[in-house]
Amino acid sequence: MIRHFEQHLQELKSRLIKMGSLAEDSINRSIQAVLNKDYELAKTIIEEDTRINEMEIEIDQAIIDALALQQPVASDLRLILAASKINNDLERIGDHGVNLAESALALRGKDLPESSLDDIKRMCQLTKRMVGDALDGFIHADANLGEAVLLMDDSVDNLNRKITKELMEVMKSNPTNIEPSLELIRVSRNLERVADLSTNIAEEVVFIAKARVVKHHASDDLATKQTES
Amino acid sequence: MIRHFEQHLQELKSRLIKMGSLAEDSINRSIQAVLNKDYELAKTIIEEDTRINEMEIEIDQAIIDALALQQPVASDLRLILAASKINNDLERIGDHGVNLAESALALRGKDLPESSLDDIKRMCQLTKRMVGDALDGFIHADANLGEAVLLMDDSVDNLNRKITKELMEVMKSNPTNIEPSLELIRVSRNLERVADLSTNIAEEVVFIAKARVVKHHASDDLATKQTES
Repeated sequence: MIRHFEQHLQELKSRLIKMGSLAEDSINRSIQAVLNKDYELAKTIIEEDTRINEMEIEIDQAIIDALALQQPVASDLRLILAASKINNDLERIGDHGVNLAESALALRGKDLPESSLDDIKRMCQLTKRMVGDALDGFIHADANLGEAVLLMDDSVDNLNRKITKELMEVMKSNPTNIEPSLELIRVSRNLERVADLSTNIAEEVVFIAKARVVKHHASDDLATKQTES
Repeated sequence: MIRHFEQHLQELKSRLIKMGSLAEDSINRSIQAVLNKDYELAKTIIEEDTRINEMEIEIDQAIIDALALQQPVASDLRLILAASKINNDLERIGDHGVNLAESALALRGKDLPESSLDDIKRMCQLTKRMVGDALDGFIHADANLGEAVLLMDDSVDNLNRKITKELMEVMKSNPTNIEPSLELIRVSRNLERVADLSTNIAEEVVFIAKARVVKHHASDDLATKQTES
């Protein structure tokens, strides 16, 4: 029975990894769509988000199944609750991929103000790395990777503030800049939210990596108790 | 043992209701702070958000406790997973209350552009109503209230788009309007996010109200099975 439950946990993890890779793809490609003005790609991203939404529901069901199968020990419950949160965060990352793709479409035919593009590119790179590392941390239960993600979040927040300020000046300098600048502020804000969600996942990763240690102790305790009884 | 589990569920619900009322207060008061330029109130809201964050952690723990106590039936598991999501949504609503309070502070000493204020006030009222109804729906397991919230979300989305467009014109007309207009766009966007989160809660409310029916059938089935065995 315990082996069976472990199988459920493994299957749940595999599904989350697959969903994570879809969400990561959505962000990486939507960034590409914004920076390279690739409108076909933007449309594809928006269409493909339904798959991420479906997976969220499937994973929620898998979580119910895993819990219903037997009474897990407290540390497994925490693990499953963490999985449920990561599931939700990944779905939201997918939503931000759609928002970014929509910004790419809204920027169609408009000149992007040059002054903040370098900062936006830097922010794109940081955000992509945070999503990737948070997921790698989850796959390998690597607390170090999780903690590295947490450290990057301040840089993204600062870049977001800097970009917003810069673009405000760009708007003031010429009213024709207002529309594309506002759209780039939206891009920056969406990237910042993706970084936040990656931070949420990283916190769960750190927690899972530590809980795993606790869990093994708890299992030992349980084994002892069962032997005693 | 089943009575004990029901007690856990009731306690969990009470805590969520308390947290909900804190989150609702945060939104109602932050709206007041923005519209009435009440900076002291804005500061209080920001300070008091820690209580909402603490409650989220306490409720997560209560969820673990409820699950660890015994093996709940599948419908109770769904209920508890719904509680976990509502918990998370309420914490995020609190965060948006803080964002709104920060906007109130950022608007200090600035003239608000008149043209979109009526729409913003309308949006404030709708959003407040959505938060309140979603919570009342949860308290009374009232699917009708939940469904009413779902219907309001489109109006808020439309108002958000309208306000953003209006403020873009205000910005174009005079560069000195750019900063306060951008802050009001932020206010509008935060209200729209609160409406989204209320919609999430309302979906869980509809789900819980329906699951309750399913649950009672499931309990009947279980009782039959236990009698048979």
